[in-house]
Amino acid sequence: MEKMLPKTGKYEFMAEPFHCDFSNRLFMGHLGNAMLNAADFHSNDRGYGMSYLNGLHKTWVLSRLAIEMEEMPTAYDRFSVETWVESAMKFFTSRNFAVTGPDGRTLGYGRSIWAMIDTETRQPVDLLAVRDGLINAYVERDKACPISKPSRVRMDKEAPLVHSLDTYYNDIDVNGHVNSVKYIEHVLDLFDLPWYRLHRLQRFEIAYVAESHQGDRLHFYREQTGEDEYGVRITKGTDDEVEVVRSLIRFAKD
Amino acid sequence: MEKMLPKTGKYEFMAEPFHCDFSNRLFMGHLGNAMLNAADFHSNDRGYGMSYLNGLHKTWVLSRLAIEMEEMPTAYDRFSVETWVESAMKFFTSRNFAVTGPDGRTLGYGRSIWAMIDTETRQPVDLLAVRDGLINAYVERDKACPISKPSRVRMDKEAPLVHSLDTYYNDIDVNGHVNSVKYIEHVLDLFDLPWYRLHRLQRFEIAYVAESHQGDRLHFYREQTGEDEYGVRITKGTDDEVEVVRSLIRFAKD
Repeated sequence: MEKMLPKTGKYEFMAEPFHCDFSNRLFMGHLGNAMLNAADFHSNDRGYGMSYLNGLHKTWVLSRLAIEMEEMPTAYDRFSVETWVESAMKFFTSRNFAVTGPDGRTLGYGRSIWAMIDTETRQPVDLLAVRDGLINAYVERDKACPISKPSRVRMDKEAPLVHSLDTYYNDIDVNGHVNSVKYIEHVLDLFDLPWYRLHRLQRFEIAYVAESHQGDRLHFYREQTGEDEYGVRITKGTDDEVEVVRSLIRFAKD
Repeated sequence: MEKMLPKTGKYEFMAEPFHCDFSNRLFMGHLGNAMLNAADFHSNDRGYGMSYLNGLHKTWVLSRLAIEMEEMPTAYDRFSVETWVESAMKFFTSRNFAVTGPDGRTLGYGRSIWAMIDTETRQPVDLLAVRDGLINAYVERDKACPISKPSRVRMDKEAPLVHSLDTYYNDIDVNGHVNSVKYIEHVLDLFDLPWYRLHRLQRFEIAYVAESHQGDRLHFYREQTGEDEYGVRITKGTDDEVEVVRSLIRFAKD
């Protein structure tokens, strides 16, 4: 058996200047990317990460991600992402995140849900069968993540189409699919600069429903679901549209 | 006077897994971003960077960038970017880059040209007037950068329009302009995945001619200028199109 590591891993990042928006705050997509990196480093270090799984033709697939921030790091800030596994079941594991600023203050939290699939059949596999359920030994029950779990975003079938776009080379990751972070950027691009001047992004949720590929045309349907809260559904295809992503965005006026 | 540092700075980066393309190699846009970070760290450390210039209402503006790579870092590779100032004149300075892989092998080089502007008038200013020309003390004359200088990309006025796109929130940097790296991505998105499966990007050049803003519609004109070599001109606007970027892309078949 591998040497046991602490259940929570902590990774340092910098809010790179060109990863910050007009207001000098880190883009949500880049924060999401830092969380995915932290998850990747944490699971690799503990023996059930992508590096180990690749040899078994298995991989982790992100199913849902929710991020809630009180404050975003600003350019050149060093920030930390702590991550730990909250629970592990046969087909899903939930992994949480805490983001702290340069002075150690908590800036926000994240929650994510992951499945494991066979890279050849694309079918879900039993993640507890990997290394005799090693992941269970790392479940952290005592660390709080005080934001609500990813919700099932309810949207009207009649929500209007607000945007369509094609997908290109830079959208595609090593699995040949549109990159998880690119969807975040495309969803947040539905709101314009004057909007962001007045509204701070407080909570962002995204559920990955199906995969899309380079050349797929994505369609964005948006519906207001509360005061300063919006649901977004992304579909692909032309005649027979298939849902690929659903997202919830909540803004705050400070 | 500040304590003098070595003329060449060396900065470490990682080819993050979600910054790599379908072939597991770092996207050129992210390599460009690493070079811009290295330039920023290097000039800040030496006292004539953005951090110091902001107080004077001045800033560096990237004018040209050329990158030539024999090999791209692959996912999880740690790579280094060395950077040094090759020359400094009143209105332009040239800064070079060398990229080395985890084993110390040189993977490629970059060349860039920068101007300094007044952030209020947007007019060029004398960069040698900053700190009594401190930058001159850092000019490195003895380090080679064995790739050719950025060229003046010649393109036919009749080059066909191949793509148009709108610019959004995630395209815009802290200066309120379309981010230098986003143009690189948009240019490289003119080629599709089947093309990249057969062609390796060997040299990439980009000249920034004018600024564009969120909401601007960008038009991409492309012309083949040699065997596996293409010129791209980006314009903005609808009736009166204005050139904003010109680029040269050279591929290799390995």
